[in-house]
Amino acid sequence: MKDAVLKTNRVLQIAFVVSDVEKAAEKYARLFGVETPPVTVSGPYESARTEYLGKPSMARCRMAFLDLDNIQFEFIEPDGYESDWKKSLEENGDSLHHIAFEVKGMQEQIDSLAQDGIGCLQRGEYPGGRYAFVDTGEKYMVKFELLEND
Amino acid sequence: MKDAVLKTNRVLQIAFVVSDVEKAAEKYARLFGVETPPVTVSGPYESARTEYLGKPSMARCRMAFLDLDNIQFEFIEPDGYESDWKKSLEENGDSLHHIAFEVKGMQEQIDSLAQDGIGCLQRGEYPGGRYAFVDTGEKYMVKFELLEND
Repeated sequence: MKDAVLKTNRVLQIAFVVSDVEKAAEKYARLFGVETPPVTVSGPYESARTEYLGKPSMARCRMAFLDLDNIQFEFIEPDGYESDWKKSLEENGDSLHHIAFEVKGMQEQIDSLAQDGIGCLQRGEYPGGRYAFVDTGEKYMVKFELLEND
Repeated sequence: MKDAVLKTNRVLQIAFVVSDVEKAAEKYARLFGVETPPVTVSGPYESARTEYLGKPSMARCRMAFLDLDNIQFEFIEPDGYESDWKKSLEENGDSLHHIAFEVKGMQEQIDSLAQDGIGCLQRGEYPGGRYAFVDTGEKYMVKFELLEND
């Protein structure tokens, strides 16, 4: 994978945007016969440094994560600030939002995708790592998230 | 997961229906910097025993599989016979079609989902196993495939 546009070997998450994170997490937990996962809230701008379409955004979200053996399901409930989460929910309703790939070297990966014609939609920080949504929907049929855990 | 509606711990595949399987496989292979996978053809009715909406179907597809460490991408090009592949391609164009879960006991899993209000859309056999697409799109936001490998 020396000449890879995106250097990765793992899909970490399949993620959905939803209008009610508790309801979605509960539904999937019942499906798999596991306990309903807790809901967490993404950090404020001061720590998350969220950028949406290249501009700072105050957007935050409520999230729940449900683990299978080899992959995690994520449910994301956007708040009222502008974000790709909110845009997707408004356009598509409760729906699959992205698949997340494990990457190392976030900026290098974003630059590599940019050379492939793929723009960065949203990025931000979280405790122990950072993420970016990239605009792969048209070319690769689904939106990708890059996830870099330190 | 004793009371699971769907007994599984693994997502095996993320699958797309496409109008040109070679083109899709080549695009993803270039993305990940790997060799373009070969295209295979699903079996004829005599071996695949394809059922679409409860009736026998002559539908076949051309497929390519691309492996990452923990998951496989699948690209499916339907033929002209009626199938859920063809219906999805006609309705949504090249798009994500399903995520596939590893299961044991196909009929038991299909029955369990039926009790949850989820119908079986299409099922069939392949060398070494069997699959079923179940109608989870509305309730679980994405279509599921059940995959049972012997």
